[in-house]
Amino acid sequence: MTAPPSISYSITIRLEVPAGGSAVGQLTGVVEQAGGMITALDVTGSGTDRLRIDVTCAASDTDHAQEIVRAIERVPDVEVHKVSDRTFLMHLGGTIQMEGKHPIRNRDDLSMVYTPGVARVCEAIAAKPEDARRLTVKRNSVAVVTDGSAVLGLGNIGPAAALPVMEGKAALFKRFGGIDAWPLCLDTQDTDEIVRTVAAISPGFAGINLEDISAPRCFEIERRLREQLDIPVFHDDQHGTAIVVLASLRNALRVVGKKLDSVRAVMSGAGAAGSAILRLLLDAGLRDVTVVDVDGVIHRGRAGMDSSLQWIAEHTNPDGRTGTLQDVLAGADVFIGVSAPNLLDADDVASMSDDAIVFALANPTPEVDPAIARQHAKVVATGRSDYPNQINNVLAFPGVFRGLLDAHCTAVYPSVLLAAADAIASSVHDDELNANYVIPSVFHAEVHQRVALAVREACERTEGTVGQDDAESPGPAS
Amino acid sequence: MTAPPSISYSITIRLEVPAGGSAVGQLTGVVEQAGGMITALDVTGSGTDRLRIDVTCAASDTDHAQEIVRAIERVPDVEVHKVSDRTFLMHLGGTIQMEGKHPIRNRDDLSMVYTPGVARVCEAIAAKPEDARRLTVKRNSVAVVTDGSAVLGLGNIGPAAALPVMEGKAALFKRFGGIDAWPLCLDTQDTDEIVRTVAAISPGFAGINLEDISAPRCFEIERRLREQLDIPVFHDDQHGTAIVVLASLRNALRVVGKKLDSVRAVMSGAGAAGSAILRLLLDAGLRDVTVVDVDGVIHRGRAGMDSSLQWIAEHTNPDGRTGTLQDVLAGADVFIGVSAPNLLDADDVASMSDDAIVFALANPTPEVDPAIARQHAKVVATGRSDYPNQINNVLAFPGVFRGLLDAHCTAVYPSVLLAAADAIASSVHDDELNANYVIPSVFHAEVHQRVALAVREACERTEGTVGQDDAESPGPAS
Repeated sequence: MTAPPSISYSITIRLEVPAGGSAVGQLTGVVEQAGGMITALDVTGSGTDRLRIDVTCAASDTDHAQEIVRAIERVPDVEVHKVSDRTFLMHLGGTIQMEGKHPIRNRDDLSMVYTPGVARVCEAIAAKPEDARRLTVKRNSVAVVTDGSAVLGLGNIGPAAALPVMEGKAALFKRFGGIDAWPLCLDTQDTDEIVRTVAAISPGFAGINLEDISAPRCFEIERRLREQLDIPVFHDDQHGTAIVVLASLRNALRVVGKKLDSVRAVMSGAGAAGSAILRLLLDAGLRDVTVVDVDGVIHRGRAGMDSSLQWIAEHTNPDGRTGTLQDVLAGADVFIGVSAPNLLDADDVASMSDDAIVFALANPTPEVDPAIARQHAKVVATGRSDYPNQINNVLAFPGVFRGLLDAHCTAVYPSVLLAAADAIASSVHDDELNANYVIPSVFHAEVHQRVALAVREACERTEGTVGQDDAESPGPAS
Repeated sequence: MTAPPSISYSITIRLEVPAGGSAVGQLTGVVEQAGGMITALDVTGSGTDRLRIDVTCAASDTDHAQEIVRAIERVPDVEVHKVSDRTFLMHLGGTIQMEGKHPIRNRDDLSMVYTPGVARVCEAIAAKPEDARRLTVKRNSVAVVTDGSAVLGLGNIGPAAALPVMEGKAALFKRFGGIDAWPLCLDTQDTDEIVRTVAAISPGFAGINLEDISAPRCFEIERRLREQLDIPVFHDDQHGTAIVVLASLRNALRVVGKKLDSVRAVMSGAGAAGSAILRLLLDAGLRDVTVVDVDGVIHRGRAGMDSSLQWIAEHTNPDGRTGTLQDVLAGADVFIGVSAPNLLDADDVASMSDDAIVFALANPTPEVDPAIARQHAKVVATGRSDYPNQINNVLAFPGVFRGLLDAHCTAVYPSVLLAAADAIASSVHDDELNANYVIPSVFHAEVHQRVALAVREACERTEGTVGQDDAESPGPAS
């Protein structure tokens, strides 16, 4: 077993044992011997000669969970009835719900929430369309849209199977941003259809969060929606990742005492996330970066590049390097991987400059084993939750949308992404900063509010407006 | 003033008066003299010489509310600061919200609601798509879809102005049906686009409630969606209304001791609601019905009929009557109007048979003044909340969808509509039934559950299936 037992692979085993024998006493030992971690042992029923017990324990993965169950089944006199999975239990019936904000107890309540009273609210919005933000849920509402084509590390699993992720995302929007998000899983992977559908449903939302849509379609979908809509469109896999990478890189550079505009960086991966990270790093002031994809180093002379690679060739690799990832990595200060597992070994990392920074973000298996990378690099970050410095989008999207919504922002500006990254980075104070803490926890007390405020201010500076306080003037008669 | 003061036109007037004078004592009298009804008088601040008071009162309509404010302003020494509208206050920021079902307190919670744990839930659904109903919010979720083309009595006010109604509808879905509905207000009124959009967003929902879409587009949209989708599609303006009309008619016939299959009925209106009511009444056993529209009686010989009118001509008017509404109403047992205000007078109602039944459902002004109709008819019903026997869709849609969802129903069958109507009708027991109580209140203790159960049973009979208990088997390992 490489991974330690995790609560996300937690199971509850319902079993019966003789009330008097030694089986009960053996359970804990058997689970621990099998590598599991008991988190609860509840006696849920008792008779004169039998006990019913729920054993809850963490396992490393699905196979490991089954090994633990088999180990328990081998204990004499133990009868296993049913095995439940805590994660599945949590997702039973979904992880989100819709709630009315007001009790509807009687005719009077009904006549205000619904007809006839609601008619006047409709008329007010018809007369002054911008009041929809004040008098409806639109003000605080984001559509989480996917076509299920690039879900987590699972690939093209389709819209229905993507729904648990979108629900989780919606739950996180509320938990960390106070936002009412609703998932929309689309039964189409056609670019035109997706653009048309999102545009059609947009009037009820103040923002669109695109999620897990595969490249290169995601670029066109986002571009066309941004042209058409007057609400912000954010592709979390691109921009959320880019924000958190920039925030982490700023702090990693603080740790090693180098400057963004004078380091040499190498990126592996030119897909959705890679392209967005690259653009944001360039906006932030990075000058010397070379990008490598599956066909090697991207440079102006390379043949057969599409428009996205062409753009990269024109804006990166100032020395016109060619060759492989290993060729360009030697002597580099920064490596950022958003590509494939196990591309680098210890020697590759050792070939980098002193105090190297390695962000190996491929999921679930990074470009280089972080334990090996740490032998030669000063700062190492991954996308995994079981190592320090997890690059986690949850740090960005709730606060970003909170700020966009509060500013009544009509678009997502580069200034917004930069401001969000800086807000995350500066949440780690000088006396907290070190090589194993370049990025705050998503449970950091202030980070989401700081991101929201920074985004709101950046929007207002860019649009030259100041968002109104929506609690003002509760009626047309005031 | 024709209408009495209503809480749905309730305002709160914030004002200041001298602490010592007689102004305070005059407030109540002044409001009552102006025809308002004071429901609260709160002193919200007090100084040595001034009081700040919030006066809340019900008015008949917007103009009346302004009259009341002006009357208060005329009281010497009273200074009116701000007038808020209670209905607008309730709609500020919207009337619905999204909530996560589980607290997300720490890394463990996060790793089950979202990554990495959620990946296994996605994989389980990818392997067995029907598990989406068990492991996501789809199970309990309905999309409330409008294009804003026929909202209440307000007409084509567009998607943004329709949102308060759709939110209210969603709130009622939860309150009376325990259903998680989310409003989708579409930025298109093109039939093809609407069908495409609803089909595209359908994977995350277990039902589609079409709302306030104008005829004749609503017929084609509903028909095509029913052909394409494997979840029930319900147009509340049609089917919800039809259910409640049939329920009310069944009970009105109980009151007068007549039978559905032997009465002669006249309908005014052949639009969305009228067509649906007609079809359901025919399904229920009504034999002799004649429909009148703006061009007079519909009969087989009439020229220039579209396919919808053609269908009506072929299935109604067995005696081949022609002429006007008045011509065919004479001697009829039942009148059902879903058309236009003030089409009938006292003589018209008097021309009907003994113990006539009049459902005058045009909103907000019925086909005949109910006070006048009651002089000559035995049972009178309207769509208004300020008369007995309100034909209110809220009696139908929450329970109907609850039943459809519980049965995992794939369509809306005529048997479902009939079962729902009978469940509503039979909620009024013999000892409760009278001419002023043919239909229960939406706050009736059992009506929604009775509708849900009847619909579920009708679905299961029709589809030959029995819905599963979704609480079973919480994981793939069990």
